Amino acid sequence: MKKTIALDMDGVIADVESHYLTWYENEFGIKLTKKDLLGKSHDDAFPQFGIIRKFASTPDFFLTIPVMDGAVEALRELMTTFDIYIVSAAMEYPQSLPEKLTWLNKHFPFIGWRNIIFCGNKNIIATDYMIDDQILNLDNFSGTSILFDAFHNVDHKDYARVFNWKEALQVLKATLNNDSI
Amino acid sequence: MKKTIALDMDGVIADVESHYLTWYENEFGIKLTKKDLLGKSHDDAFPQFGIIRKFASTPDFFLTIPVMDGAVEALRELMTTFDIYIVSAAMEYPQSLPEKLTWLNKHFPFIGWRNIIFCGNKNIIATDYMIDDQILNLDNFSGTSILFDAFHNVDHKDYARVFNWKEALQVLKATLNNDSI
Repeated sequence: MKKTIALDMDGVIADVESHYLTWYENEFGIKLTKKDLLGKSHDDAFPQFGIIRKFASTPDFFLTIPVMDGAVEALRELMTTFDIYIVSAAMEYPQSLPEKLTWLNKHFPFIGWRNIIFCGNKNIIATDYMIDDQILNLDNFSGTSILFDAFHNVDHKDYARVFNWKEALQVLKATLNNDSI
Repeated sequence: MKKTIALDMDGVIADVESHYLTWYENEFGIKLTKKDLLGKSHDDAFPQFGIIRKFASTPDFFLTIPVMDGAVEALRELMTTFDIYIVSAAMEYPQSLPEKLTWLNKHFPFIGWRNIIFCGNKNIIATDYMIDDQILNLDNFSGTSILFDAFHNVDHKDYARVFNWKEALQVLKATLNNDSI
């Protein structure tokens, strides 16, 4: 039986960080970079407290997120070895549900509807691996956790960190011969 | 820590069987009863093969399902003892996602967004209990399964069967003193 992986969307297969910066520039006319966000939380990432929540509540935000570099190729490759589930904590933003499904069908048409999960928290998700950028999701996970690097998690030390999909693939392939990472 | 329960929507907290009969009568002018569906599958439940899939693909179908008798009171009571998650295999019908969320917020406003999961299959859901009317979901579940009686599962013998929410409550309460059911 194939081992299972729960893959997050925003910050893992969707480059939401670039999207925040684009939407911020479009609204305020100020061009910031990923370096400007480093070490900040979602709420204080930008000078306007909570502006990310406003973006995330706006129609079309989730529909138009760019795909994370290398994610499409990586998932195609992973599917030959693992059972992949897309697990996105989407329920806080109801308008995101159909947008996320449309986005997945557009960019990852090879992932079927049976392998997509939209949830509130991820506390009852049980897979062998989870790749996520949110510490809380990994803290409540009982399998092997892999932290996808993001501005809001740079100071965290508890999990194996990957900076891109090339590294994520290497880590997951290595586990095929050795369960510890 | 509270034990966790995954509760299905259609056929468990939503009386989708009554809804099929209502929609069938509205479309074909023929009044059938629950007895007419007994022992049939979803596809051959009505003389028109697959008509249930057509209903389930129609806007407003999921928004207007009546609540299962006793479900609201039962869930309020269960929440004092268990962590309840609503887990619905909704992904096959994308238009159902916002409808199901609206329906839950209307009829079960005491269930927060953190405890709602819309999925394709339920293979990676890990709770202590699952209440479901679909045999396939229970077959792939590693916790304690409780089968909610429905026309399409009457011949199945593998799981503890409950016929209504009064019985479901009794079974779950009994487990607090004894893990086997």
